[in-house]
Amino acid sequence: MLYLAEMEVHIPESWSEEKIADYIARERETSQKWQKSGKWVYLWRVAGQYANVSVIEAESPEEFHQIVSSLPLFPYMTIKVKSLCKHPNAVRETLL
Amino acid sequence: MLYLAEMEVHIPESWSEEKIADYIARERETSQKWQKSGKWVYLWRVAGQYANVSVIEAESPEEFHQIVSSLPLFPYMTIKVKSLCKHPNAVRETLL
Amino acid sequence: MLYLAEMEVHIPESWSEEKIADYIARERETSQKWQKSGKWVYLWRVAGQYANVSVIEAESPEEFHQIVSSLPLFPYMTIKVKSLCKHPNAVRETLL
Amino acid sequence: MLYLAEMEVHIPESWSEEKIADYIARERETSQKWQKSGKWVYLWRVAGQYANVSVIEAESPEEFHQIVSSLPLFPYMTIKVKSLCKHPNAVRETLL
Amino acid sequence: MLYLAEMEVHIPESWSEEKIADYIARERETSQKWQKSGKWVYLWRVAGQYANVSVIEAESPEEFHQIVSSLPLFPYMTIKVKSLCKHPNAVRETLL
Amino acid sequence: MLYLAEMEVHIPESWSEEKIADYIARERETSQKWQKSGKWVYLWRVAGQYANVSVIEAESPEEFHQIVSSLPLFPYMTIKVKSLCKHPNAVRETLL
Amino acid sequence: MLYLAEMEVHIPESWSEEKIADYIARERETSQKWQKSGKWVYLWRVAGQYANVSVIEAESPEEFHQIVSSLPLFPYMTIKVKSLCKHPNAVRETLL
Amino acid sequence: MLYLAEMEVHIPESWSEEKIADYIARERETSQKWQKSGKWVYLWRVAGQYANVSVIEAESPEEFHQIVSSLPLFPYMTIKVKSLCKHPNAVRETLL
Amino acid sequence: MLYLAEMEVHIPESWSEEKIADYIARERETSQKWQKSGKWVYLWRVAGQYANVSVIEAESPEEFHQIVSSLPLFPYMTIKVKSLCKHPNAVRETLL
Amino acid sequence: MLYLAEMEVHIPESWSEEKIADYIARERETSQKWQKSGKWVYLWRVAGQYANVSVIEAESPEEFHQIVSSLPLFPYMTIKVKSLCKHPNAVRETLL
Repeated sequence: MLYLAEMEVHIPESWSEEKIADYIARERETSQKWQKSGKWVYLWRVAGQYANVSVIEAESPEEFHQIVSSLPLFPYMTIKVKSLCKHPNAVRETLL
Repeated sequence: MLYLAEMEVHIPESWSEEKIADYIARERETSQKWQKSGKWVYLWRVAGQYANVSVIEAESPEEFHQIVSSLPLFPYMTIKVKSLCKHPNAVRETLL
Repeated sequence: MLYLAEMEVHIPESWSEEKIADYIARERETSQKWQKSGKWVYLWRVAGQYANVSVIEAESPEEFHQIVSSLPLFPYMTIKVKSLCKHPNAVRETLL
Repeated sequence: MLYLAEMEVHIPESWSEEKIADYIARERETSQKWQKSGKWVYLWRVAGQYANVSVIEAESPEEFHQIVSSLPLFPYMTIKVKSLCKHPNAVRETLL
Repeated sequence: MLYLAEMEVHIPESWSEEKIADYIARERETSQKWQKSGKWVYLWRVAGQYANVSVIEAESPEEFHQIVSSLPLFPYMTIKVKSLCKHPNAVRETLL
Repeated sequence: MLYLAEMEVHIPESWSEEKIADYIARERETSQKWQKSGKWVYLWRVAGQYANVSVIEAESPEEFHQIVSSLPLFPYMTIKVKSLCKHPNAVRETLL
Repeated sequence: MLYLAEMEVHIPESWSEEKIADYIARERETSQKWQKSGKWVYLWRVAGQYANVSVIEAESPEEFHQIVSSLPLFPYMTIKVKSLCKHPNAVRETLL
Repeated sequence: MLYLAEMEVHIPESWSEEKIADYIARERETSQKWQKSGKWVYLWRVAGQYANVSVIEAESPEEFHQIVSSLPLFPYMTIKVKSLCKHPNAVRETLL
Repeated sequence: MLYLAEMEVHIPESWSEEKIADYIARERETSQKWQKSGKWVYLWRVAGQYANVSVIEAESPEEFHQIVSSLPLFPYMTIKVKSLCKHPNAVRETLL
Repeated sequence: MLYLAEMEVHIPESWSEEKIADYIARERETSQKWQKSGKWVYLWRVAGQYANVSVIEAESPEEFHQIVSSLPLFPYMTIKVKSLCKHPNAVRETLL
């Protein structure tokens, strides 16, 4: 099942530059692990904003939540979630 | 260049069932023409809502506007647009 | 998989009382068919509003969309959807 | 009487990891005490968000407030409340 | 149990003056019946707006919904509802 | 003249428990002083939220502002204000 | 007592040009009657919008409501109201 | 003085295609008259939406309002206005 | 040219009482300097809120910005701005 | 391709005056570098607010993001982005 997640990052203002760099490195690592597993299908930057749009294919809502909440910056993000399904007008067979 | 468009449809309450059916048929035709051209990459239904999420790859903002505004229901949709670009953590080479 | 759907009804002002009564009767019939199937688990009225809160257990996002969009008043509702999953602090075994 | 409560948690950025762990442990304990009492009927995680949806059956608005405000993280949550009642189309006899 | 209801009226633009006058007369009658019963405790106009603020004391969420939904203009109002309870700093014994 | 004020409290996260307890005690004292004077007519808790709904009868907008702004937590509250007046359908003679 | 009212006009789309002209003429007449009485102190157009900002000095909330609701277009306006009082830093003696 | 105006068009659903075409033709004519005068400096389409962004240089707020309100579709647009001024970091001498 | 500015103050929670008192004193001084110059025409408190409504008459958008941004609390305020112009129904000759 | 970006700055309250001055100096330097390159076409102050409106001409969404995210204050800004294209009624040949 497919989810669209829009994540907006809010780094706490009190964090040192080292702490920020550490979080960003671990965020990258976690995100790429899920991308390489094939479950995190797309990861795009929203042009001009500290935000991303992601397409995630999970086996269940639990797995989707596990993926998103494993991100080190998860507690510092505003996330909008849409559960997607096949559109009657869609012609592609893949990714719904 | 890649755009994410979220379209929510609001059919005018005064339309007859024939008019609605006609618009929906032409909407389908137009949307599928663009999908087959390869420019309208994904078209998903938002589960539980009269809305879709679309990923469109256009050569310019003009072409993107041309695609979306060619839909017969364009004047009756609320559309949110995000211009997308490559995310530094992305591992896929295709679609940015 | 479990969904929470909050539906707010907006009857078109031009409808005759007969048309409204007909829609409400068919709405009731459709909603009760799904409830009896066991998929529409809960249907509550929001006190003081022309709105309901529903808990729906579907096999897929497609089935959830099929249930909600089969309601005759679907095109005249504003619907908010939340995909639910098990909470780490939950003690009940049923319904997640 | 039945309430639907949607709780979104905002952990203060200045809290140490120990303080966070302590609050989360006490939150779990309090929430499970109310669930075991039968008053906190359902506790679900919203997939992809640091938020929950809860169904609480209380004897009065005072008791509902007592339950929610006994949570250690209560002052750090944004909470939306809906008072629920029986829907004319509902077929289930339990939980309204 | 006490509810605060804020009701904003939106008369359909297509209604004739006769129809509007008829609805307003019946609205008045229904509202006064509930006030005289003692259940609709306060009814105030919001200065400068086509809206009211009401305090309603009902025996249950069902009765509260029955009162509000019995108003002829119910389908044409936007209603915000708050369930009220005793405040720890309150000194009055009546009305919570 | 009558005002409806909805106050939502946001305690700063940096405050010590002593400071919070001190503010809450002084808040109680101030609020009860105004209630006993007869000007702060009603004070209700919104069930499930760190918020109250108040009905205040003042001689002027200045006095209303004096009452609300005398609360020690005034700078840490989000307050919505409605100026109330007599409703043409109201049957009670007191409190408008 | 002083009120700030921001009024946004929404002319129903079904109205004929004659009906619109008639309403606008009567609106002008009513508004100028109140301005000449000295109670409607200022009436400004918001540049670029079909909206106005008004400063009204009334003897009571009832009188303020009477003034605003006497406008023929009152049922077709979205109105935001602020009750004003003297600012501690104000140096002018007039109009608070 | 410079204004930024974002205009979103909402064509009434009851208009015939002839009426729409007539309004759009007159809209074009009016907009181009102001552009040729040099006062309406830029007119851009927002990609994917029935909306425009305009930069207008007027001698006064009155003239700005005159320009915008002369558009035949003015009563059917939602317009957001920002008054602009020179930015301390700006390097261009023209257009502020 | 006339502007309506609504300013809402958000004092940082970390400020000491001395720092707050110092800012408030300088705010008062700056605001009164502009009022005495005749440019800051009205300054009102919004009853029940830590907010003001101001009417400012400036020679240009630059001067308006200079006035507002000279306030010591300017970086800690949420400000809504409306550019005003003469209303066709206005009868007063002064202040537009 | 052309973008409209509206940037609202939120300086962290904990920053010292030196840190603020340093950021503002580097912000100025970065912004002027892009303006001189011809890519940041316009930079305007929104009158009365700590915000700017910018028109940026980039070769791709990636370049647009590179420009905006190179600003030292980028993590502390709320940014609204609109992708612009040629309007059918536009008469100017330059900047679309």
